[in-house]
Amino acid sequence: MIMNKKNQNSIKDTLKGIQVYTFTSNAHYKNQKDLLLVVFEECLNYAGVYTQSSCPSIPVSWCKQQLNKKKIRAILVNAGNANAFTGLRGENDLKDLVGAVSKKISCKIDEVAIASTGVIGEFLNTKPIIEAISSMSEEDVSSWHDAAESIMTTDTYPKIAYQTIKIDDEDVNIIGLAKGSGMIEPNMATMLSFIFTDANLSFDILNTILKDVVRDSFNSISVDGDTSTSDTVILVSTNAAQHELLTEEKDPRTKHLQETLQSIANDLAKKIVIDGEGATKLVEINTISAVSKDSAMKIAKSIANSPLVKTALYGEDPNWGRIVGAIGKSFEKIDINRMRLFIGDFLVAYNGAVSEDYTEEDVKNYMRNKEILITVELNQGKHAHRVWTCDLSHKYIDINTDYRS
Amino acid sequence: MIMNKKNQNSIKDTLKGIQVYTFTSNAHYKNQKDLLLVVFEECLNYAGVYTQSSCPSIPVSWCKQQLNKKKIRAILVNAGNANAFTGLRGENDLKDLVGAVSKKISCKIDEVAIASTGVIGEFLNTKPIIEAISSMSEEDVSSWHDAAESIMTTDTYPKIAYQTIKIDDEDVNIIGLAKGSGMIEPNMATMLSFIFTDANLSFDILNTILKDVVRDSFNSISVDGDTSTSDTVILVSTNAAQHELLTEEKDPRTKHLQETLQSIANDLAKKIVIDGEGATKLVEINTISAVSKDSAMKIAKSIANSPLVKTALYGEDPNWGRIVGAIGKSFEKIDINRMRLFIGDFLVAYNGAVSEDYTEEDVKNYMRNKEILITVELNQGKHAHRVWTCDLSHKYIDINTDYRS
Repeated sequence: MIMNKKNQNSIKDTLKGIQVYTFTSNAHYKNQKDLLLVVFEECLNYAGVYTQSSCPSIPVSWCKQQLNKKKIRAILVNAGNANAFTGLRGENDLKDLVGAVSKKISCKIDEVAIASTGVIGEFLNTKPIIEAISSMSEEDVSSWHDAAESIMTTDTYPKIAYQTIKIDDEDVNIIGLAKGSGMIEPNMATMLSFIFTDANLSFDILNTILKDVVRDSFNSISVDGDTSTSDTVILVSTNAAQHELLTEEKDPRTKHLQETLQSIANDLAKKIVIDGEGATKLVEINTISAVSKDSAMKIAKSIANSPLVKTALYGEDPNWGRIVGAIGKSFEKIDINRMRLFIGDFLVAYNGAVSEDYTEEDVKNYMRNKEILITVELNQGKHAHRVWTCDLSHKYIDINTDYRS
Repeated sequence: MIMNKKNQNSIKDTLKGIQVYTFTSNAHYKNQKDLLLVVFEECLNYAGVYTQSSCPSIPVSWCKQQLNKKKIRAILVNAGNANAFTGLRGENDLKDLVGAVSKKISCKIDEVAIASTGVIGEFLNTKPIIEAISSMSEEDVSSWHDAAESIMTTDTYPKIAYQTIKIDDEDVNIIGLAKGSGMIEPNMATMLSFIFTDANLSFDILNTILKDVVRDSFNSISVDGDTSTSDTVILVSTNAAQHELLTEEKDPRTKHLQETLQSIANDLAKKIVIDGEGATKLVEINTISAVSKDSAMKIAKSIANSPLVKTALYGEDPNWGRIVGAIGKSFEKIDINRMRLFIGDFLVAYNGAVSEDYTEEDVKNYMRNKEILITVELNQGKHAHRVWTCDLSHKYIDINTDYRS
């Protein structure tokens, strides 16, 4: 959803106690917004989910190990340099940045979350970033749209989603930002997302919800099968909404809030895939009636990460045999005689072979669409999973060959 | 090694009891050799290693389940159609083919191994194949070079390797054929290899050796991270060499034979990578001083399968941060402060950061080579693994977008 001035303001008004600042620091990019600082009037409950990489970036290590576990006062995000694999110097650079924020807004350093995205292995250019923070003023107050823009790297457009719902007849607002593009999978690779709400919910519920939401959104997308050192999703609540405090997972009001957060996260996740490096199509892969959630995920991701499937999608070639090949390389136990494979609404294969009704021309026509649906019905159990991916095009090679991203 | 007429004949002479026939059946390709039949004078010991795909092809299922477990009389290979995901009709087609061979050479059907490679999900065109087999005559007797040619699909050249060694002062000959190209990894995807020897060794030793050899050769290469439904490696021995029967793994003569087989298999594996779809560089990735063989393999393969690393290699960009990213996405436990990363002989990173001696220009120059070496020294244990891969180029996209392979 594209935000216009009017609804930007309405969200800014309703998410009271959150101030957004953006800067053009020129630290690593030239003349583009590259720095975001989100400041909370008071310390707020938050939940974080981070990359599972064995070589996490310095900011991810900070957030996992040294950040206050329950409450934060600010989130700092810089684009252009990941501060990953930068050793002791990288750690000192990080401390300089969170130190500058803590000094500016008068909080403890362990109340400042930080995320960095960009090149791995190069040292941060901290000086212009610290200068921007130190000289920050009312003039730097920005819109959510600017915020989404300031965290972009190879993204071609800012990613933002929001919704307002009613709980106990009170307004509850949720706004989410994300950046992605390339290197997405299997666990939120090189993607950042920050979601803010005024929902009144306990710290425990905040954390439980975020884990589930991330699993089915940011952890269920794939652009190229690569995972980054820097993935971060942070959910913050001001608890300012006037409804009763939500403390139970099973409370229908909690469920309503979770569904809304899921839909915001799904929206952002799909935006990341659509903006995947060189992507021309959004592809949704559903595995249904699998023996377990884990098996359903593995099969869906095996298809989503297959370069042969992704090039066939780009070529609009209904080469469904490659989908079968990709299902096979999940190494999950499958009864191929019970499996049914659909492209769109077309049943292309069942009973271990091509469908008698399969007409290549029909499926080829369907594959000209910008959004493609692939469904694998396993008929082995009750579990399902959905993954979003994109095709693999010449442009992906161009972007990643010619550009140090 | 390219074979000339002279050494082709010498191998043909020395590998007595093996007859090679090739055909242009026109079943799926037009006017190119597409069918290979290798016939043994008598039933021979063999060992087979097959794809781990959950959706194996009909020929792989046949070899795994119905083929005689110890001895075979013939191997039939057709190129252009994989006979995979073709259900009951595919099973009947297979029986027609092995039936035609058993009738022609007077053996049992369960003594005929079969491998098919090509498009998945389409039905075999059996008639021209059966006609070729039925009318086979001395005129169809071919060279090993022709044999390697007849199993090609998107391969651009035939892959063949051979060596002669001495055991007990007697000549022992080994000849290997392979086909590959695209869809290679993690376990021999869409690759076939057939290795023949006159070494005199027991059935058990034959099987033990093949497993080890395949692990470190065909299972340690990667073109695009895809795995096929049809991978097959078969090793056959005539036992005709005059040396004492080898029955012990620890016998130095067995080790000598195994090393030779390993070198033949490595040679073929590297040829497959060099001929990977769109490949412009051969890349060797060594992980050393890892906690276990398994961990060393996972880290090496994680690098080999990273599209971001592969595009950087194509672009000759020393973007070593992407290698760190790929090591991280192995999810293996790593001490990044002890790890050292080399590109060629250049130490690019240690102590969790870039090396002080690192000069981008030097490494950039090195990356212009056609063969690139990446070494990850983990300093955590005693285990090592080596993987060969290639870069990811525009041509890979061309081949897989425009061509139903």
